[in-house]
Amino acid sequence: MISLNYYEPETQQWQPITFNQLPTQLPADARLWINLNDASVDEQQTILQHFAIAPTLAEDFGRQRHPPKLEAETHFTLLILRGYADVDFSEYSGSAQVNLLYSKQVLISRIYCHNASLLNQLKPQIKTTQSADIAEWIKHLILTVSASYLEKLINFEEEQSELEDGMLQRGTDEQMARIMRYRSVLRKINRNLAYQKDIFADAFYEEQNPLLRHFSATDVRDFYEKFERLHSMTDLYYDQLSDLVEGYISTTSHQINERMKVLTIVSTIFIPLTFIAGIYGMNFMYMPELQIANAYFIVLIFMALGGIAGLIWFKIRGWW
Amino acid sequence: MISLNYYEPETQQWQPITFNQLPTQLPADARLWINLNDASVDEQQTILQHFAIAPTLAEDFGRQRHPPKLEAETHFTLLILRGYADVDFSEYSGSAQVNLLYSKQVLISRIYCHNASLLNQLKPQIKTTQSADIAEWIKHLILTVSASYLEKLINFEEEQSELEDGMLQRGTDEQMARIMRYRSVLRKINRNLAYQKDIFADAFYEEQNPLLRHFSATDVRDFYEKFERLHSMTDLYYDQLSDLVEGYISTTSHQINERMKVLTIVSTIFIPLTFIAGIYGMNFMYMPELQIANAYFIVLIFMALGGIAGLIWFKIRGWW
Amino acid sequence: MISLNYYEPETQQWQPITFNQLPTQLPADARLWINLNDASVDEQQTILQHFAIAPTLAEDFGRQRHPPKLEAETHFTLLILRGYADVDFSEYSGSAQVNLLYSKQVLISRIYCHNASLLNQLKPQIKTTQSADIAEWIKHLILTVSASYLEKLINFEEEQSELEDGMLQRGTDEQMARIMRYRSVLRKINRNLAYQKDIFADAFYEEQNPLLRHFSATDVRDFYEKFERLHSMTDLYYDQLSDLVEGYISTTSHQINERMKVLTIVSTIFIPLTFIAGIYGMNFMYMPELQIANAYFIVLIFMALGGIAGLIWFKIRGWW
Amino acid sequence: MISLNYYEPETQQWQPITFNQLPTQLPADARLWINLNDASVDEQQTILQHFAIAPTLAEDFGRQRHPPKLEAETHFTLLILRGYADVDFSEYSGSAQVNLLYSKQVLISRIYCHNASLLNQLKPQIKTTQSADIAEWIKHLILTVSASYLEKLINFEEEQSELEDGMLQRGTDEQMARIMRYRSVLRKINRNLAYQKDIFADAFYEEQNPLLRHFSATDVRDFYEKFERLHSMTDLYYDQLSDLVEGYISTTSHQINERMKVLTIVSTIFIPLTFIAGIYGMNFMYMPELQIANAYFIVLIFMALGGIAGLIWFKIRGWW
Amino acid sequence: MISLNYYEPETQQWQPITFNQLPTQLPADARLWINLNDASVDEQQTILQHFAIAPTLAEDFGRQRHPPKLEAETHFTLLILRGYADVDFSEYSGSAQVNLLYSKQVLISRIYCHNASLLNQLKPQIKTTQSADIAEWIKHLILTVSASYLEKLINFEEEQSELEDGMLQRGTDEQMARIMRYRSVLRKINRNLAYQKDIFADAFYEEQNPLLRHFSATDVRDFYEKFERLHSMTDLYYDQLSDLVEGYISTTSHQINERMKVLTIVSTIFIPLTFIAGIYGMNFMYMPELQIANAYFIVLIFMALGGIAGLIWFKIRGWW
Ligand SMILES: [Mg+2]
Ligand SMILES: [Mg+2]
Ligand SMILES: [Mg+2]
Ligand SMILES: [Mg+2]
Ligand SMILES: [Mg+2]
Ligand SMILES: [Mg+2]
Ligand SMILES: [Mg+2]
Ligand SMILES: [Mg+2]
Ligand SMILES: [Mg+2]
Ligand SMILES: [Mg+2]
Ligand SMILES: [Mg+2]
Ligand SMILES: [Mg+2]
Ligand SMILES: [Mg+2]
Ligand SMILES: [Mg+2]
Ligand SMILES: [Mg+2]
Ligand SMILES: [Mg+2]
Ligand SMILES: [Mg+2]
Ligand SMILES: [Mg+2]
Ligand SMILES: [Mg+2]
Ligand SMILES: [Mg+2]
Ligand SMILES: [Mg+2]
Ligand SMILES: [Mg+2]
Ligand SMILES: [Mg+2]
Ligand SMILES: [Mg+2]
Ligand SMILES: [Mg+2]
Ligand SMILES: [Mg+2]
Ligand SMILES: [Mg+2]
Ligand SMILES: [Mg+2]
Ligand SMILES: [Mg+2]
Ligand SMILES: [Mg+2]
Ligand SMILES: [Mg+2]
Repeated sequence: MISLNYYEPETQQWQPITFNQLPTQLPADARLWINLNDASVDEQQTILQHFAIAPTLAEDFGRQRHPPKLEAETHFTLLILRGYADVDFSEYSGSAQVNLLYSKQVLISRIYCHNASLLNQLKPQIKTTQSADIAEWIKHLILTVSASYLEKLINFEEEQSELEDGMLQRGTDEQMARIMRYRSVLRKINRNLAYQKDIFADAFYEEQNPLLRHFSATDVRDFYEKFERLHSMTDLYYDQLSDLVEGYISTTSHQINERMKVLTIVSTIFIPLTFIAGIYGMNFMYMPELQIANAYFIVLIFMALGGIAGLIWFKIRGWW
Repeated sequence: MISLNYYEPETQQWQPITFNQLPTQLPADARLWINLNDASVDEQQTILQHFAIAPTLAEDFGRQRHPPKLEAETHFTLLILRGYADVDFSEYSGSAQVNLLYSKQVLISRIYCHNASLLNQLKPQIKTTQSADIAEWIKHLILTVSASYLEKLINFEEEQSELEDGMLQRGTDEQMARIMRYRSVLRKINRNLAYQKDIFADAFYEEQNPLLRHFSATDVRDFYEKFERLHSMTDLYYDQLSDLVEGYISTTSHQINERMKVLTIVSTIFIPLTFIAGIYGMNFMYMPELQIANAYFIVLIFMALGGIAGLIWFKIRGWW
Repeated sequence: MISLNYYEPETQQWQPITFNQLPTQLPADARLWINLNDASVDEQQTILQHFAIAPTLAEDFGRQRHPPKLEAETHFTLLILRGYADVDFSEYSGSAQVNLLYSKQVLISRIYCHNASLLNQLKPQIKTTQSADIAEWIKHLILTVSASYLEKLINFEEEQSELEDGMLQRGTDEQMARIMRYRSVLRKINRNLAYQKDIFADAFYEEQNPLLRHFSATDVRDFYEKFERLHSMTDLYYDQLSDLVEGYISTTSHQINERMKVLTIVSTIFIPLTFIAGIYGMNFMYMPELQIANAYFIVLIFMALGGIAGLIWFKIRGWW
Repeated sequence: MISLNYYEPETQQWQPITFNQLPTQLPADARLWINLNDASVDEQQTILQHFAIAPTLAEDFGRQRHPPKLEAETHFTLLILRGYADVDFSEYSGSAQVNLLYSKQVLISRIYCHNASLLNQLKPQIKTTQSADIAEWIKHLILTVSASYLEKLINFEEEQSELEDGMLQRGTDEQMARIMRYRSVLRKINRNLAYQKDIFADAFYEEQNPLLRHFSATDVRDFYEKFERLHSMTDLYYDQLSDLVEGYISTTSHQINERMKVLTIVSTIFIPLTFIAGIYGMNFMYMPELQIANAYFIVLIFMALGGIAGLIWFKIRGWW
Repeated sequence: MISLNYYEPETQQWQPITFNQLPTQLPADARLWINLNDASVDEQQTILQHFAIAPTLAEDFGRQRHPPKLEAETHFTLLILRGYADVDFSEYSGSAQVNLLYSKQVLISRIYCHNASLLNQLKPQIKTTQSADIAEWIKHLILTVSASYLEKLINFEEEQSELEDGMLQRGTDEQMARIMRYRSVLRKINRNLAYQKDIFADAFYEEQNPLLRHFSATDVRDFYEKFERLHSMTDLYYDQLSDLVEGYISTTSHQINERMKVLTIVSTIFIPLTFIAGIYGMNFMYMPELQIANAYFIVLIFMALGGIAGLIWFKIRGWW
């Protein structure tokens, strides 16, 4: 099922039309938005052929999963973006894949997004009685994609410093698992944002970059700065979480070392003494020492001396 | 044994010929594919000399193991590619080495690949009654090499998140060994893909790059994007597995720390108490305390006090 | 509440004025500083519209949190800087956000800073009876922002080597937590400084960089060197602290290994011996060995032999 | 002792000559190889002064240890290379230092190499009755230096995967020491290869690079690719060994965690129970419980309940 | 106290003069070295103002701690270098700060160096009866700064491989502390050398670089290579020490794992058996088993079976 929204310049009205009603030659002021979200493979094929989209571009546009990219033909420009469709960074159930093919008058869009509210925003804003500037539509989509990251990234700072405080007191398995999840998700997001940052960075440095057909240098710079900021925030959070993991290894080995010291000192002193007590607890018929008058006290003194000697030895070895 | 497939422009027929039947001067519309997969060193030498291939190119073409590269002479272009010939990333029994020397009319290919089905795809598609565009053959081989990675890399996402979930509950030796294998294989693949990504990236930026003799800029860009995507996916998986290894070290040290705490508290309290019990279990003839009326209860109280003192000391030290 | 400070060229006097008193057309020698620190969103909007500031610049200027950046329009230049507003690096309660919009005659500033003394310095120095060079104001603000880092970074060297000495003797939980805090804060500062270093580095290499409208190449180079030095000092301290964390892991595992060796040798020898003593401490009616004359001595010798055998076995295994 | 080999164009003969027999002005077709391997400092000084070698070049040529470099004067070019002179990568007893000063007609060489067979190959191949192309000599030396790495690096793949398999079953101290040695040696080799890769990479990009006086672009590219491949193989092996070290830390902490779990469960349950048994093994005159009829069974039941309670507590804590 | 050394062209004599004797206009062939090592802030100020040094340059020249840099004015060039003033790399008590302002005829120098012998070398070599080439003085100072690193770095190779051998047998706390100190010092030195390498690298690539006023391209290249070599040696040593730290963590965890295995097997088998022995060592009035004839042997057999069962279970779990 393909949804075509056509702006009829005479009647200055937007109205849904079917593919067959599509004039082969679009009038100059006509505007057309073709929403392929629910299109079948064949329907999509017919549309792309109708607008003579190059095979390589058509192939990329048709993929549910393809890294963000920008590539232009004479009339059409392919822009693939990836928004963030999950509530928070605890799991990554796939990006909001925004595949756009646009020209001066036509926007062909296919958007895969499991988050209903975001999907709803990822639509061109059509004002019923007005024509439309396709570039404005694209700008709105770019800013929506960037916004789908920003709020969550700014809020994450709260979660990150909570994790930091938590781990510095006494980390738990659950916190460690959360950190590991976040790191894995942040890496995926960071890769998406790197691709998108590069798209606008390239536009910055190449005079005849396709984006400059539709946007001013100031706009392109704003797009770049938005994605660069998101990208460097994910870098920052990822690195801070990695520091936390490494730091936590250091804290736990410190504590294990401390506990190990106590256990070893107590065991090394008392296990041999218990053994000696065990010897004199044996019920052999003939055990000469047992008969000696103050053997008991001698053994006790020997045990005390042994214990103190052990403590001194550990002191020399710098154990406490 | 060399297999020569010759397209006879007059008869517009492909037919296998022997080396001697090879016309010294190829007619303009003739096409020739020389398959050296089973050629001996001498047979290969004669072919390469016949087409006056430069020594350095001949040397590289002749190697079973050589990193991917692109180098052109006046007529011939040497293109070395490496496909992925194993079922999954659990072990790397060597790449599919694709050594190609091609000109407008001739393709000389030598392919080493232990995976029969991939070897079968790594062949130019000859349509019996039609001539052939050598460039189309090369394009098919490039896309086959790239495809030999893509499916497996996309499926690996499943395996990677399973490993992630597994390690976050309770990792096993077997899972850790699997992660280590994957990382080692991913590094090798990543290096191959880096070489191949660079080949097409160079073509992107150099005007008179040899690839542009046979392919359009759009095609070259598509080749680049395909290998860049594969390369960055191996980077992503490699990094995520490394995070898992580092994270797992942190999780296990946390758990060791917790177990160590329980063991040390129990041992530090009960080993000395057992020692005291051992002392009064000794069978010395003369042990005064044993005779005292409620010595038993005093000892019990002392033991209880000692135990509680231990617990309080640990509480002060923040152990629980 | 907006505070406007206006230099009246005729009276050569600075005096506070209200927004309505603002002449639509500023006389050539007039100077104006508009302090929006306490302005409401609307008040800020009116000011920015009055000076026809571009929407993207206005948006960035209006944010309390935005990475440092430099962007110029025909008349106005937007300069966002981040100073360091905390006493030391033990926690990062947010930067001193310095948002500036300046032209030849006008400075519009909005500064968020929880540190009163720093906030006080982050103001243009107005000499009552003299006009002002807006560039001098900006230079003063840039140097104040850089100075807000320098002292603390130089003093940190003391703290860093103390931590180093501390960790090499016997690290404590508290020291480890401090290192982790410092690393987390240093990363944030390092990111801020990287942005600011890049602003002045760009100016270095681009002829018509907006900064060069107001500053000489020598000044810009000095700004760059100051922020580059700060940035590389945070890099240095961060890396040294990371080395300390990694090194401390190595030291503690060494010590755990040593303690483990003592514990295992003592336990492996004495626990079995205690068990044997326990066996002959049992009160079974009929235990033949107990009756044998010198069974006691045989058992003692066996225990001694067992102990020595254990020690020798450990010696062979290279344990001591 | 200096050995001079002079090609006399008239007699078309190579013959050893002494320094004094050296014509001040070399005839056009004369060729000269001066081997300074066993020269004293003064002898070397006289030679270098005779050919008016610049002081900085002479200084570098004279060093037994200097990183690889290429620097040219009007007539002479200084080329310093480092071959690999050890049998395998288990230890690095110093590189084969190949110091060359060559012009159209003269080669001055000084080679330090403790490996006799390699030293033997590192000599220009003089065909008694033929003149010589100094460039061919240099090419032979470059390819010999590169070959001194290649075989060993390719064979190392075998050793690397053996280590990998070994560490995944049960690593030993010996294997870990071997990995550490390899990593240390690989780093040194990698640095040498990086210097040498850069020499030929520079030649690739600089039109008037000194190498292009003597070699074609194809030759220089082949030199570059050979050293780049060696460099990237050492990178690959180094990284894989590092993964092995990190992975092994993870495997051992997993196993320590498992053993720790068993030890703690057994100790936490049985040490207190042994203590209770020890209490009732005490020989106090008056211990009321001992007299109670089925106190023995009550104690046994209590012990059993305690043990089971311990097991259940560990189950709740997720220990097994 | 300022020391001025003035070369009087007429008398061709060097003689110390006071600041007032300084001719306002220096005769063409005069030479002047002003040593500010012991100058007060004011004295320094008067000198810098006398030669109209720009404020930013004067500010940097005046700092006791400033990263190495090169900046030129019309007449004067500011060159800041950092030598290595400590005996070895075990601690870093601050660099030899070499602040130089030089022109064709004048050298103003301020050197902070706690190492007397190095301070003594860091002086221009004045030959009493000869004029001086200020550039020669600067060259001498640059080579002295580079030499202050080289010997120690070459000798460090010995210390590094000793540490490596030490850690591979049995590391000690002391060796680990030494490695940590070296790493921390090497990082600081590496940063200084990176700054100084960059100074000469820039000169390499910028035609009108200030250094080229006084030095030939060959000289500048030699300076670059010297500092690049030092920098890459510190990189190499730092990385090798880091490998050692990481490798040592792996070795110790391997050994802890081995010891843990022995301890757990012995404890898990003997602690329960000792408990059972303890039970039958209890003095309850009525313990039926004690009366049964061969209960003793049954208990012994049970204990043996339990022990063997434990060993088999560990074997199945792959523990030995
Ligand atoms: Mg992807
Ligand atoms: Mg992704
Ligand atoms: Mg990134
Ligand atoms: Mg990319
Ligand atoms: Mg913006
Ligand atoms: Mg880190
Ligand atoms: Mg290879
Ligand atoms: Mg490979
Ligand atoms: Mg890579
Ligand atoms: Mg490469
Ligand atoms: Mg594509
Ligand atoms: Mg990581
Ligand atoms: Mg931010
Ligand atoms: Mg920040
Ligand atoms: Mg940085
Ligand atoms: Mg940036
Ligand atoms: Mg400065
Ligand atoms: Mg490190
Ligand atoms: Mg060296
Ligand atoms: Mg080396
Ligand atoms: Mg490298
Ligand atoms: Mg280099
Ligand atoms: Mg080659
Ligand atoms: Mg790694
Ligand atoms: Mg500094
Ligand atoms: Mg420093
Ligand atoms: Mg460095
Ligand atoms: Mg720098
Ligand atoms: Mg040199
Ligand atoms: Mg370097
Ligand atoms: Mg490492």
